[in-house]
Amino acid sequence: MRFYDHYNTSLNDDIDLEHESSYNAWLQYAWIGDLEYKKQIERYTNELVTLEQSSIIHSATTELNQALFSMLNSQPRVSMSLSSTTGLVLATTKQERQLPSTIRLEDIEDEGYAIKTHDNQTIYIVGRSDKGILYGTFHLLRLIQMKKDLDNLDILENPANQFRMINQWDNVDSSVERGYSGNSIFYRDNQFSSNLTRIKDYARLLSSTGVNAISINNVNVHQIETNFITSEFLPDVKKVASIFRAYGITTFLAINYASPIGIGNMETADPLNPSVQQWWKEAVKEIYESIPDFGGFIVKADSENRPGPFTYNRNHADGANLLAKALEPYNGVVIWRCFVYNCKQDWRDRETDRARAAYDHFTPLDGKFNDNVILQIKNGPMDFQVREPVSPLIGALKDTNQILEFQIAQEYTGQQRHLCYLIPQWKEVLDFDTYAKGKGTEVKTIVNGSLYNNKYSGISAVSNIGNDYNWTGHTLAQANLYGFGRLIWNPDLSADEITDEWVRMTFGNESQTVEVVSHMLSQSWEIYENYTSPLGVGWMINPGHHYGPNIEGYEYSAWGTYHFSDRDGTGVNRTLKNGTGYTGQYFSPNKEIYESIERCPDELLLFFHHVPYSHQLKSGETVIQHIYNTHFEGVEQVERLAADWRELEGKVDKVRFNDVLSKLEEQLEHSKEWRDIINTYYYRKSGIDDRFKRKIY
Amino acid sequence: MRFYDHYNTSLNDDIDLEHESSYNAWLQYAWIGDLEYKKQIERYTNELVTLEQSSIIHSATTELNQALFSMLNSQPRVSMSLSSTTGLVLATTKQERQLPSTIRLEDIEDEGYAIKTHDNQTIYIVGRSDKGILYGTFHLLRLIQMKKDLDNLDILENPANQFRMINQWDNVDSSVERGYSGNSIFYRDNQFSSNLTRIKDYARLLSSTGVNAISINNVNVHQIETNFITSEFLPDVKKVASIFRAYGITTFLAINYASPIGIGNMETADPLNPSVQQWWKEAVKEIYESIPDFGGFIVKADSENRPGPFTYNRNHADGANLLAKALEPYNGVVIWRCFVYNCKQDWRDRETDRARAAYDHFTPLDGKFNDNVILQIKNGPMDFQVREPVSPLIGALKDTNQILEFQIAQEYTGQQRHLCYLIPQWKEVLDFDTYAKGKGTEVKTIVNGSLYNNKYSGISAVSNIGNDYNWTGHTLAQANLYGFGRLIWNPDLSADEITDEWVRMTFGNESQTVEVVSHMLSQSWEIYENYTSPLGVGWMINPGHHYGPNIEGYEYSAWGTYHFSDRDGTGVNRTLKNGTGYTGQYFSPNKEIYESIERCPDELLLFFHHVPYSHQLKSGETVIQHIYNTHFEGVEQVERLAADWRELEGKVDKVRFNDVLSKLEEQLEHSKEWRDIINTYYYRKSGIDDRFKRKIY
Repeated sequence: MRFYDHYNTSLNDDIDLEHESSYNAWLQYAWIGDLEYKKQIERYTNELVTLEQSSIIHSATTELNQALFSMLNSQPRVSMSLSSTTGLVLATTKQERQLPSTIRLEDIEDEGYAIKTHDNQTIYIVGRSDKGILYGTFHLLRLIQMKKDLDNLDILENPANQFRMINQWDNVDSSVERGYSGNSIFYRDNQFSSNLTRIKDYARLLSSTGVNAISINNVNVHQIETNFITSEFLPDVKKVASIFRAYGITTFLAINYASPIGIGNMETADPLNPSVQQWWKEAVKEIYESIPDFGGFIVKADSENRPGPFTYNRNHADGANLLAKALEPYNGVVIWRCFVYNCKQDWRDRETDRARAAYDHFTPLDGKFNDNVILQIKNGPMDFQVREPVSPLIGALKDTNQILEFQIAQEYTGQQRHLCYLIPQWKEVLDFDTYAKGKGTEVKTIVNGSLYNNKYSGISAVSNIGNDYNWTGHTLAQANLYGFGRLIWNPDLSADEITDEWVRMTFGNESQTVEVVSHMLSQSWEIYENYTSPLGVGWMINPGHHYGPNIEGYEYSAWGTYHFSDRDGTGVNRTLKNGTGYTGQYFSPNKEIYESIERCPDELLLFFHHVPYSHQLKSGETVIQHIYNTHFEGVEQVERLAADWRELEGKVDKVRFNDVLSKLEEQLEHSKEWRDIINTYYYRKSGIDDRFKRKIY
Repeated sequence: MRFYDHYNTSLNDDIDLEHESSYNAWLQYAWIGDLEYKKQIERYTNELVTLEQSSIIHSATTELNQALFSMLNSQPRVSMSLSSTTGLVLATTKQERQLPSTIRLEDIEDEGYAIKTHDNQTIYIVGRSDKGILYGTFHLLRLIQMKKDLDNLDILENPANQFRMINQWDNVDSSVERGYSGNSIFYRDNQFSSNLTRIKDYARLLSSTGVNAISINNVNVHQIETNFITSEFLPDVKKVASIFRAYGITTFLAINYASPIGIGNMETADPLNPSVQQWWKEAVKEIYESIPDFGGFIVKADSENRPGPFTYNRNHADGANLLAKALEPYNGVVIWRCFVYNCKQDWRDRETDRARAAYDHFTPLDGKFNDNVILQIKNGPMDFQVREPVSPLIGALKDTNQILEFQIAQEYTGQQRHLCYLIPQWKEVLDFDTYAKGKGTEVKTIVNGSLYNNKYSGISAVSNIGNDYNWTGHTLAQANLYGFGRLIWNPDLSADEITDEWVRMTFGNESQTVEVVSHMLSQSWEIYENYTSPLGVGWMINPGHHYGPNIEGYEYSAWGTYHFSDRDGTGVNRTLKNGTGYTGQYFSPNKEIYESIERCPDELLLFFHHVPYSHQLKSGETVIQHIYNTHFEGVEQVERLAADWRELEGKVDKVRFNDVLSKLEEQLEHSKEWRDIINTYYYRKSGIDDRFKRKIY
């Protein structure tokens, strides 16, 4: 019997039996053979009491029933009132009178929950709302998957961030922009997909990590997708939204700023034009008539050739407020992306610096946006490189709602062919002290809305999933999707904690497996950085598809992503003193640290400075020797990754074992390309021999 | 009235009146206003006598009628016998008794002709066959277009080359591989085009230059095209062949070597397998039943991922002979391309040299091919770069038929967006002394079959036309198509003679126009070379589409096209002494000349040698200063090209004037990109300042 046949939610024609464990990701709910543990938890799982009903609570009970059947081969008796002395109780804080007073109901916030073991007999999962119940349910099931003791649970969880969002870059033709896991699960043949089960399973995966919002189409909104907000496609959007709604996830659409022209046959999309304003009001009304809890719009405007308010000599505030006013009556929001820069820059022009663009564009507009506009800011000033400084825009907007944007899709970090676990990178971003209001104003305190007391705030990310049977191309890339949700729910979780959860849920609790996989993941970002572009300089990849080394691929292009390597040195001078002045966008003392060649962290040196190859790093090595060392080391590390994984043969099911192994073998092959091309490039430029006389071509 | 309405052959729905002169190319047949000249030639054009009939002679008389009407506004009386005392007589040598004895009939070869003015009253155009009549007719019309004196004509023309062939790289989906002039004129929507008029006009253009063979589909034979040799498409091929036949042009098809698998559902295409042999025999039989004068096959096998005999551990002779034996009963031939190399080479491997590949593959097979196999050899060892040495395979095959391959399509020479007149380049190739049999064995004496007394020989080229209204994208690129035909008819024509003909026929005889356009064309190859890759090193272009500068675009790729530039020097060491040994493929003294840094011609220095930037050229400049100088000069030259052309405003019709001007403006813009990127690249590498302190970035 197929494992996921246990769920009627998960029956999926696309997936063969042998790919079941790949498909189930971290919701394996593997059979628990440990009789002692089973006995221990039996009393909490014999009865399931739900004091209220809603579609979200239904999702929770369904998940529980199926998960418990799968793990324990028994299902709880279901009841609507507290009768039994043992079992599991799901309730919102509204049921206060029926709940033990030891549960601190007043501390449970909007989407938060408590899990409390009462008298060693009953476990209560209490949410402020039904969403909290669902999150608490997934939490409990996680504990069981990890075989945790349930006897003394006293958990209180509130999400740190209000918007915990996923952006799909899916196109209606079924392609996924920057997708590395097959085609879209949402669309097929220029229509919405009829495989709603797949979407439901995606909702389960997301919800289990705490994600509460999703935009379902690419921010580059093409011709057909422009019509998603019309009656042609709204019935389909509604269907998808209702699937996500049952998992506590609000649906958004990316819109085409030129819709009044494309759909409305108007001659302008000028945000100050009353007819345009009227057009949007009516368009929004139609959406909310169909989907009353619709989230709002995400907009990429005046960026990389997308239309926007610039066409009409209006600014981004004019542009965003147009939509905001239309959405306001329905509590909808506009998420306006700050990824705006000149993608037609002249490489000869050393004054223009793409890194400056978002800050330069948006800080002058601080305070000018409607209060249901949220600016979405990429974590770095460039574009999701393996290493970038934190965007200086974060913290610089004091009167504007903002969302931080990560990219789970590994566009620049190996495209889910290389292993690159991104949680440690995102941790660093969230923990980075901006000094926006003096010491201790880390990114996480800004994006959660607390520092500036924003009405709306949060974190979003570009998804890494597609219709591959394992969702993410590289099986281990599932960890990035899981980890994103968990980290933004609680940025104070350590990467190791998140990793441990994911590995145990995904591959079980066998100790060598947990140790090996955790170690592989935790090392992988550093490894990828080692053999790719050095010391924060970024890029050096093939233009267009962005895979594989091409050191000068962007060096003379219009995209603003240069490294200026010459025979004497390498790196970009972004200092105030004699560079592009980008360092001036940071608060002190970050400004001074980045400005100084001596104080600038090694790993970002070439992002901020052009230095001679002989420049000595804090590590004691010269820049050129560091490049050689890390590139040789990176490949050796990939060799060890593959060797480590091979040790798990027989401990991981065959499909996942072989899938990961073949990816690691590909990574090894390609990491050698990176190593040899980068080393050869710098050797030919610098003429400086490797101190250890290793082979450079 | 539309000019080309004069011809019923040329009526073409695709072409608007305003684009008529663009469309007519060099067959303008412009109205002759000069009454004196009209009077002078009147007596030769008042009567047209054809002593024989054939479809080819019909093409000649039709062309004459229409051209004379267009130029003179009168048409000759047509008669079948010599009655009048003045006029034009078309005849083959069979009519010896009716022809003046002053015509040296015995000197007229197979496709040759004589044009003789008799007694200042009659002009005789006499061919050995009707093809000669047609060529002679176009010759006479050319003379009239150029307003030449017709009173004392005594012309004998025999084509130097037997096969004078055009290769279309057209796909049935209407795309053209390396096409820069719109889509295919042959195919639309995966079917043969119904616009046969366009094909007929193409036949007229080709025939007017002496071309006598054409392959009508891409050498990369895709799925649908594989079936061209089956009953599904043969009726269409037959139609096209009959159009070309009337213009003396034999039709060929490019075939898929794996056809027995793709069409025949066999499990193998092994050339030594009797069933495969039988399959080809039957396939060929079917073709000839439909098209009795079908030319044969052109084959790209075991090259750039195309199937071929290597799959079955057979060699190219086995592969070609399989097809040759099937074609033999019908006098068909196999044209087997020598563009065979390892396109998956490791850039780290400095032993492998793509330049060596054709010679290394094919010289061991010399003498092993059936005598109806012709090897088609690209002019250079690489791939149609702006500058390459002549392929050393030319002259090295003593017992094998061969055809030389040029590329009229400007894949690497500006893609018909830049002006690059290729006749001077091809002249250099044809005049190159291979020393294959000692001094005086120029390429032209080998490819015309005379040196080794080949049964078959000739020259082919990849076409540059598409369905653009001017055929060639860049209006002036028409000159390359014209010049190709004229040059291979008679390689002893100078480039200037060909240019003069083309300019006068295309733009008229006004002296400034002739001077300016001729000068622009004659300079353009050098100009393009100046601002692109230097000193014969080639490439440095964007991978894939091959347009625009990308200095290291192929430097670390699998395609074998490197330049190995480092901080000290640049170029490829292909010497016997300590390089790839490629120089050893040439006959002495070329071998020694190329081997020697001192003797190697400047323009090929970096093709054969890796030299320091400070190396002094024969010109007296250092390599680096030469690079800077030529790149600055190249852009200045393009500026002058545009200025020169602007002088012709009002002398050239508006459409062609503006079309060429906009192309020149684009060329100027893009030549600056080339200049700045190449100079910056080499400056960053070498650190050597420009002696003249010009701006390098």
